[in-house]
Amino acid sequence: MIIVMKLDVAEEDIKRVEEQLEELGYASHLIRGVDRIVIGAVGDKKREGASSLELLPGVEKVVPVMAPYKLVSREVKPENSLIDIGDGVVFGSQELVVMAGPCAVEDEERLFTVAEKVAAAGARLLRGGAFKPRTSPYSFQGLEEEGLKLLAQARQKTGLKIVTEVVNPQDVELVSSYADILQVGARNMQNYVLLRELGRQSRPVLLKRGLSATIEEWLMSAEYILSEGNYSVILCERGIRTFENYTRSTLDISAVPVVKGRSHLPIVVDPSHSSGDRKLVPALSRASIAAGADGLLIEVHPQPEKAMCDGPQSLTPHDFEILMGELRALAPLCGRRL
Amino acid sequence: MIIVMKLDVAEEDIKRVEEQLEELGYASHLIRGVDRIVIGAVGDKKREGASSLELLPGVEKVVPVMAPYKLVSREVKPENSLIDIGDGVVFGSQELVVMAGPCAVEDEERLFTVAEKVAAAGARLLRGGAFKPRTSPYSFQGLEEEGLKLLAQARQKTGLKIVTEVVNPQDVELVSSYADILQVGARNMQNYVLLRELGRQSRPVLLKRGLSATIEEWLMSAEYILSEGNYSVILCERGIRTFENYTRSTLDISAVPVVKGRSHLPIVVDPSHSSGDRKLVPALSRASIAAGADGLLIEVHPQPEKAMCDGPQSLTPHDFEILMGELRALAPLCGRRL
Amino acid sequence: MIIVMKLDVAEEDIKRVEEQLEELGYASHLIRGVDRIVIGAVGDKKREGASSLELLPGVEKVVPVMAPYKLVSREVKPENSLIDIGDGVVFGSQELVVMAGPCAVEDEERLFTVAEKVAAAGARLLRGGAFKPRTSPYSFQGLEEEGLKLLAQARQKTGLKIVTEVVNPQDVELVSSYADILQVGARNMQNYVLLRELGRQSRPVLLKRGLSATIEEWLMSAEYILSEGNYSVILCERGIRTFENYTRSTLDISAVPVVKGRSHLPIVVDPSHSSGDRKLVPALSRASIAAGADGLLIEVHPQPEKAMCDGPQSLTPHDFEILMGELRALAPLCGRRL
Amino acid sequence: MIIVMKLDVAEEDIKRVEEQLEELGYASHLIRGVDRIVIGAVGDKKREGASSLELLPGVEKVVPVMAPYKLVSREVKPENSLIDIGDGVVFGSQELVVMAGPCAVEDEERLFTVAEKVAAAGARLLRGGAFKPRTSPYSFQGLEEEGLKLLAQARQKTGLKIVTEVVNPQDVELVSSYADILQVGARNMQNYVLLRELGRQSRPVLLKRGLSATIEEWLMSAEYILSEGNYSVILCERGIRTFENYTRSTLDISAVPVVKGRSHLPIVVDPSHSSGDRKLVPALSRASIAAGADGLLIEVHPQPEKAMCDGPQSLTPHDFEILMGELRALAPLCGRRL
Repeated sequence: MIIVMKLDVAEEDIKRVEEQLEELGYASHLIRGVDRIVIGAVGDKKREGASSLELLPGVEKVVPVMAPYKLVSREVKPENSLIDIGDGVVFGSQELVVMAGPCAVEDEERLFTVAEKVAAAGARLLRGGAFKPRTSPYSFQGLEEEGLKLLAQARQKTGLKIVTEVVNPQDVELVSSYADILQVGARNMQNYVLLRELGRQSRPVLLKRGLSATIEEWLMSAEYILSEGNYSVILCERGIRTFENYTRSTLDISAVPVVKGRSHLPIVVDPSHSSGDRKLVPALSRASIAAGADGLLIEVHPQPEKAMCDGPQSLTPHDFEILMGELRALAPLCGRRL
Repeated sequence: MIIVMKLDVAEEDIKRVEEQLEELGYASHLIRGVDRIVIGAVGDKKREGASSLELLPGVEKVVPVMAPYKLVSREVKPENSLIDIGDGVVFGSQELVVMAGPCAVEDEERLFTVAEKVAAAGARLLRGGAFKPRTSPYSFQGLEEEGLKLLAQARQKTGLKIVTEVVNPQDVELVSSYADILQVGARNMQNYVLLRELGRQSRPVLLKRGLSATIEEWLMSAEYILSEGNYSVILCERGIRTFENYTRSTLDISAVPVVKGRSHLPIVVDPSHSSGDRKLVPALSRASIAAGADGLLIEVHPQPEKAMCDGPQSLTPHDFEILMGELRALAPLCGRRL
Repeated sequence: MIIVMKLDVAEEDIKRVEEQLEELGYASHLIRGVDRIVIGAVGDKKREGASSLELLPGVEKVVPVMAPYKLVSREVKPENSLIDIGDGVVFGSQELVVMAGPCAVEDEERLFTVAEKVAAAGARLLRGGAFKPRTSPYSFQGLEEEGLKLLAQARQKTGLKIVTEVVNPQDVELVSSYADILQVGARNMQNYVLLRELGRQSRPVLLKRGLSATIEEWLMSAEYILSEGNYSVILCERGIRTFENYTRSTLDISAVPVVKGRSHLPIVVDPSHSSGDRKLVPALSRASIAAGADGLLIEVHPQPEKAMCDGPQSLTPHDFEILMGELRALAPLCGRRL
Repeated sequence: MIIVMKLDVAEEDIKRVEEQLEELGYASHLIRGVDRIVIGAVGDKKREGASSLELLPGVEKVVPVMAPYKLVSREVKPENSLIDIGDGVVFGSQELVVMAGPCAVEDEERLFTVAEKVAAAGARLLRGGAFKPRTSPYSFQGLEEEGLKLLAQARQKTGLKIVTEVVNPQDVELVSSYADILQVGARNMQNYVLLRELGRQSRPVLLKRGLSATIEEWLMSAEYILSEGNYSVILCERGIRTFENYTRSTLDISAVPVVKGRSHLPIVVDPSHSSGDRKLVPALSRASIAAGADGLLIEVHPQPEKAMCDGPQSLTPHDFEILMGELRALAPLCGRRL
């Protein structure tokens, strides 16, 4: 931590900062510059109240030096984490993992149809929401446990693994009894009660980035899960909110190499939610793989124009099959296979 | 709902849209412009799947015409809602309501000290977090029920009402047994499980705006609470996330008159969290009242430089007293009293 | 400048950084922390290439310690700058200065009508664009010199001073031969050719903040003008671009106290452009004065519903008169007069 | 254009809107919905003042139906535009065009070194700034005409074409006498005086997207150039400003397929400025090609750690050569060659 002092700082102000640092358990190093005095604070952990040093007289600002996350950091664990969900499906490995399916589980027929098609095209997991967090209380909120049962049946039929969202800390046990991966949606990225609950069980967690979350905050949310004992976290970039309105969100493609540089956790991309437009999904899927993503989460619906939610961003099974062909050709160039 | 057709649309595409509209329960009106054909869709409610019309051939885009919220809308209820929390404290009335206190409840001594001082200066509610949602799992997370008890004792001593945050749907009953107003933090603005739970009980709710929430989404979150039966919602603007980094968030002062125009619910401002800097709090407090806010939520700590969280944005009791004097003079010019 | 080294940095990497610092003219101070080594660099000016230190092996990041602006800084000049434009109109003084008028100069009759009305209501300057930077090449681009002449005639008739925009560096002389203050629009805030030209002449400059400019960049643009010799710069906050779309821009009200803390230059607010909605203008005007602004720039049009540009955000002369009455009552509470 | 009326609109208000529309040259179509009345306005061009209809009593809002750009639109010209700059270098063709070189032209030796290396690696154009728009007036501002001469000599030696920035409308002739493509920087995207000047000459223009420009505004800026007669415009995505601060800007990768869908103009990506970090440049370059970009603009410097500007984002010639190899393999999978 670096404390930058004001231009006209008095010696007694410097002394007071040094005393406060000592009280907080830091050693201090004074640097007298030409225009400006700064104090380097050396200590073995981030302590409560350090930021309040800014309030002492003569202090201009406090600059933290270290990133606040630890367990998720590549500095702590240099090699990639492999998240193995069984049957040879391993996130973070050489294999690209594609998850596909409808936004929401609507009924048996549509779900099974789409499951079979995406399995045939090479997807390894079926996605589909049973609990749907919707902006409007008047929108379809999901089939709940009935939806989970349909997902489990689809797994039975197709061999696909299941990824589905959990929104209520109390439902974690229920959802994990059906699903292979528990998804945390963008709106719940900082629902710490839910994150802690997920950290206390062993199912892998797919953690979506919040709409206005910095990468640092996203990694801190992953840190919540790891700090409770569950190290199986897959990060999912799904677009951030900006002023641009030709797309629903702005896919932050740079997040893929940035996260890869800073963390050992696998990262996948959701091109469907980030764009909100199925015409953009193929280009964004290819770009994500080219940028180094470990997998994709793609919405596919047998009749997008009749979907109960997010139809405009859903591919048809036919479009999905074509896209998978393109990605299969692209993978080896990125040191991957599909 | 308006459906804008593509430039080169075929007659059969128009027909297909009209058929789909009929199936969804809408009547359609065709307008042939010079360059462009648009179809107006008339119906009595927003139906699932309407947005999927965008996927039909020949459709350029679908433009919704009505705001998605109803119960919170001033169109439905033109007069201001008054939220009465007892002892003459009424949000939305002529009286400005000031809530003040520390970020977190830390210990008895500090809490009682600050409670007495803010009460003496004219605050009507004591704020203080017992359950703290923190970005880092390693930061102080609050005293939990012990903190609630201290708040209740402070109420006993000072006559101040209590506003405190609830983060877990399971804790709603517990927190409402101690608090007068239940606060939903910015990170939980779209925690719909929590919102529904709060809608099913009768304590007033202070709903903070999410960091990247549009005003429309914020009103939709309030709609969740009202739609479950609890009409006592107070909105709280607390800054949105932008690229500017001299302040922690950007206080969206325009939100005050915008919300006043669109909704009958009271709106207050939190100048402490939005700026993250106590030097800015007085100016932002005055601006909020001048813009028409119904009240303020201000952090006050007896020793900000030793606070366990958010010290840099906390006023001292002395600064708070000075600010209250300024606001008291300002209120009558805004048709208020304090 | 602080250089933060990587966790596993080698001694030779530290040595290389120290050598490079020496070559750039800095003295270096090494601080060995528990986890991390940082190097403080002390020197008498910001040198080219310092940021490239980040590329040396072992370097994690480079943290600048000082703000990059100098002449505009309150550290360099603690007392407020007073910008005197004659006839007792002084920006930065105790008097609030209100500038009002149409978005664009359209014709003699409308301009003179509005000029007389805003003068009668207490405005001190007439605003009106003769050169209009418009998003579309097909929109009305202004009356150019003809518009300047009309403004000068309106000054003659009413005694109002004139503020008008200049968009072309070649027109600076022309515009300054008619206007009392030269306005730089938001889109030109980083048009350095224009800024330098304005710095080389003596008319005061009203510098609008760019839509996505940080406060630091805005102050750096002012620094361009001052560094060429013209110290008469008035800053104008006019809203920044965010995801919120119920308003055209988001008025960054915090910018007022932030700029007041960091710079000696006067700052005014344009509530018309920031909101794009005349219904919001009164609340935002009051808030701006309450936050400490030195003045306002407000659009007024005799028939807003027939204006050639920005009608929706223009007040009628009658609304303006009412607003001026409110501001006149408010001013003394903010230590001002109007 | 659709005019949405208020819930409780009076018949006379509807009449007034219809009259105003007639006056503006529109035909009107009334649609009476269940809750809401809307009026469709049909006319052959966008007229001044249409937005002011919002001010009429009873009007809730005005929704434009058509995009405001014409000449740049794919609706007007369905096939891709090919921008031929000679010697077989054609933007928008099957060949990917890579432009590379230093941020600024610094001296003969470094420029020629880097030019030879990027030519050998397969670049077709040399980039390098002679006029540098810098945030600080105290930063290196470029070698000006001396820099242009060096660029021309480098072209002579290597056969590379030259792309360089023009910042002053008065310099357009000078710069176009040396350069093959004239670059408009992000800060000048809405410098309409400059855009018009560039539209009146025949050199191709590389138009960078402004930091907070929507895609629509960017296309409108291109429209300025085309509307003056110069149809040779290449769009360049270079990142937009968001709250994320691990990267300098956020590369909006979706802009590539969005622009391709809406416009016939070629689009390239600048991965160097958007990230500000050379470690991210390879991943973002690959992603851009995979998303469908027509080319890249990449910073390469012989000794990035000694560069006078933007060192941290510059590749070494060696890194650039490796990247070109990767892109060469990737191109055929995207229907391209390099």
